[in-house]
Amino acid sequence: MPTLLLDRNAVSNLMNMSDIIRVVEEAFRIWGEGKGNMPAKAYLLVDHGDFRAMPAALPGCAGMKWVNAHPHNSSRNLPSVMAVIIYNDPETGYPLAIMDGTEITAYRTGAAAAIASKYLARQDSNTLGIVGAGCQAYTQIRAHAELFNLSSINVFDVSTAAVDKLIRSFPGYSIKICSLEEAAASDIVCTLTPSREPIIKKEWIMAGTHVNAVGADAEGKEELEPSILKEAIVVVDDMRQATIGGEINVPIKKGIFAVDEVYGTLAELVVGNKKGREDNKAITVFDSTGIAIEDIAVAKLIFEKAQQIGGYPSIDLVAT
Amino acid sequence: MPTLLLDRNAVSNLMNMSDIIRVVEEAFRIWGEGKGNMPAKAYLLVDHGDFRAMPAALPGCAGMKWVNAHPHNSSRNLPSVMAVIIYNDPETGYPLAIMDGTEITAYRTGAAAAIASKYLARQDSNTLGIVGAGCQAYTQIRAHAELFNLSSINVFDVSTAAVDKLIRSFPGYSIKICSLEEAAASDIVCTLTPSREPIIKKEWIMAGTHVNAVGADAEGKEELEPSILKEAIVVVDDMRQATIGGEINVPIKKGIFAVDEVYGTLAELVVGNKKGREDNKAITVFDSTGIAIEDIAVAKLIFEKAQQIGGYPSIDLVAT
Repeated sequence: MPTLLLDRNAVSNLMNMSDIIRVVEEAFRIWGEGKGNMPAKAYLLVDHGDFRAMPAALPGCAGMKWVNAHPHNSSRNLPSVMAVIIYNDPETGYPLAIMDGTEITAYRTGAAAAIASKYLARQDSNTLGIVGAGCQAYTQIRAHAELFNLSSINVFDVSTAAVDKLIRSFPGYSIKICSLEEAAASDIVCTLTPSREPIIKKEWIMAGTHVNAVGADAEGKEELEPSILKEAIVVVDDMRQATIGGEINVPIKKGIFAVDEVYGTLAELVVGNKKGREDNKAITVFDSTGIAIEDIAVAKLIFEKAQQIGGYPSIDLVAT
Repeated sequence: MPTLLLDRNAVSNLMNMSDIIRVVEEAFRIWGEGKGNMPAKAYLLVDHGDFRAMPAALPGCAGMKWVNAHPHNSSRNLPSVMAVIIYNDPETGYPLAIMDGTEITAYRTGAAAAIASKYLARQDSNTLGIVGAGCQAYTQIRAHAELFNLSSINVFDVSTAAVDKLIRSFPGYSIKICSLEEAAASDIVCTLTPSREPIIKKEWIMAGTHVNAVGADAEGKEELEPSILKEAIVVVDDMRQATIGGEINVPIKKGIFAVDEVYGTLAELVVGNKKGREDNKAITVFDSTGIAIEDIAVAKLIFEKAQQIGGYPSIDLVAT
C-alpha cells in the first residue's frame, strides 16, 4: 500500500477556496458536536525558532501537521513557516499521504476567518479592511470574496510594495491602499500582522464592525487595543490556544480581560448552540489561532481529490 | 531545496547496529548534559488505536516521529505500529527528509537496552534471556551481540513458531527455545511483551541479573513482579514517560513503588553523574519506554549516510 506524495505544486493546484470553506465549516460543526479529537499542540523549541506538532482526528480522518516558525529565515531566502502534513487512515494508522501543509495553512486560516465573518459580521458587510499585506492577506480576500459582495477592499501595510503586489494579484477586485485608520474603518477588518503591541485603536472601529484578529498566534502577540475586546462579542477558535497565544492572551495576562468574558467558540456558532450577530451595532471579534482540525479537514479534501484524479507519485514509505 | 525521501527499504539498508548504538549513546550523553529539547509526547486517540507525536531536538538536528498503535491491525494484514519521521534542519526548520520510522524504532530500542546493559549488567554477562519473540527480539539480540560475548541466548514465547523463526534468522548464534523461567534465569533478561500482568516472578531472577523491561510502554502495562523493582536498582530512560506508561507505572499507581525509589536515568549513567553497577550481586532493571531523542539521533545518522551515498529520491515538498 503506497503513501501518496503531494508536493506544494500538487497541493496548490488541488486547492479551491469554496471547497475549503465548506470542509472547514463542516469540521467546526463536527467538532462542535463533540466528535473528533484534538490534543494540545506540542511545541519544540530550538535556538532560532520553534516547531509545533498539531495532531487531530475527525470521523474518517486523522493526521498531524508539523510546522516550524523561524522568524529570521528571510535572511536565508527561506519562508519563516513551512509545514508538512502526515495524513493517516484512522482505522489502521496507515500513512495515506505526505503533503505540503504551507498552502493548506494559509487557505484554512482564510476560510476560518470568513466563516467567522459569516456568523458574526453584518450580512450587508461590503467593505473589507486588510491590515498586513503578507501571504495571509491573499487567502483572507479570496475567502471573504466567496461569502460577501465586496465593493471595496482597503489595505494597509508598512510596505507599499507589498500592497502594490497584492493589488496586482487581484485584477478585477476593487482594492486600494489606505491608512491603518481607514483599513480599520471597514465593515469587516482582518488584522494579519506579527505585532506585539496594539496597532488598532478602539476609536477607529465603527459600531457594527466585525474584526478577525488573526495575527496573534503566540504568547506576547496582540494587535487590538484591549478596550475593543472589552466592548466586543469575542469568539475564539479554541479556548486553550487563544488563552495561551491568541489575541486575548496579553490582556488576560495583564488582568484586563478574563476568560469568562469570551462569548463562545466558532464551533458553538456553527452548531447553533450559540447565536451569531443579532445586533447591527455590536462590535464582534474572532480570535483566530489556527487549529489542527482545520488542517486535517483540508488534508482529507486534498487527499480525496488527488486520489480521484490519480497519477500522483507515491512511495512504499512504511512496510505493510 | 528538495526533501529526501527514504522509504523502508532505503532506511533498512542504511541501518547498522554498531553505528546506531554509538549515536544513541551519544544522544543520551548530550541529553544528560542538558543540551537538546524533548517535549512530552502528544497522544491522539482514535476509535481503534492511537497516534503519538514525538518531537525532539539535539544540537544540529531536530524532527518528529509520528507513530501509531493499532492493536487489531493484524486482522487486516497490517503491522500494529507504523512510524514516519520528519527530519528538519534546526537552523531554518526546513524538512530535510521524510523517512520510515518503523525500523528506526526497532533498532534504537534494541540499542538503548544494550547501552543500559553496558552500564548495568555484569561485565562477564554471557547469557541473554529473551521473553517475547516478536520483532523487538531481533534488535535486542543484534544490539547485545555488539556489546557482549553471548554464549547462549534463551528465548521464550507463547508461540513456538515465532521462536523457530527467530532461531532461523540468526544462523551461527547459539539460540535455544526455553521456558519462561529459564529465559528469566539469564545474566541479561529482555522482557518484550505487551503484558498487562506481571509474567516474570521474583524467585526466578538470580542475584546479579540485569533486566531490560521494554514491553511496558503505556498505562496499565507491566511485565515484572513489583518485588523485583523493590529490590533492584531501577534506571529509566525518561522519568515522565516511565511514570505514565513504563514498567514502574502500575506499581506506582498501586502505591507499591515510589518515583523516588528510581535510582536514576540512563542519561545520568552515560554522562557519569551516577555510577552503573558496582555490586556483582545486585539486580538491576532498565525501564525502557522509548524516547524521541533516540529516534532523532538515528534519523540524523540515516540522513547523513543517505546524503553521502547520494541517489535517493527527493521532492520539492514545501516551497522555498
